[in-house]
Amino acid sequence: MSSHPVTQLDDTVHQRVRLGILTILATAGRADFTYLRDTLELTDGNLGRHLDVLYDAGYVEITKTFEGRRPRTWVTITKGGRTALTGHIAALRQMIDAVPDK
Amino acid sequence: MSSHPVTQLDDTVHQRVRLGILTILATAGRADFTYLRDTLELTDGNLGRHLDVLYDAGYVEITKTFEGRRPRTWVTITKGGRTALTGHIAALRQMIDAVPDK
Repeated sequence: MSSHPVTQLDDTVHQRVRLGILTILATAGRADFTYLRDTLELTDGNLGRHLDVLYDAGYVEITKTFEGRRPRTWVTITKGGRTALTGHIAALRQMIDAVPDK
Repeated sequence: MSSHPVTQLDDTVHQRVRLGILTILATAGRADFTYLRDTLELTDGNLGRHLDVLYDAGYVEITKTFEGRRPRTWVTITKGGRTALTGHIAALRQMIDAVPDK
């Protein structure tokens, strides 16, 4: 018997906010810290902690730049992050596609 | 601006194992404790704790029966559980459908 897709879900990716971050990055290519924070309705500290988890897993890269004198933090998804997200989405689809609409 | 779907995800439903339990129950109608434990590769204690969370949220009902002298524990999804899961799946789809395949 093959494993249930739930056993393939990785909490690093699955956690609500981190799944949001990764889907935004995979869709948009990159996003800046302020955009992620405001879109996902987070505090600076909360977003920072989730980005640390994703960075430690090798799923995102973080680049600090200056635009004039204003610092700006860009977040991009890595190839490993994209692979992890794609596998995760496949497992999620397997689970949710089986559920009847009503 | 409407909220990002991530803000609609409820951790009671979203947590990996509980999403697995609810999708199985919504698909199969009901399942017994042993089936859930073995399919999701959990210990008795771990499954029990997740069922407690779902029960406290009003998302599952738990019925203990006897078949001959063997006790059997059935878990069914409630109407509220089905509503929560359906809304959750809609938010998840909104997030993952935007992600390109590659």
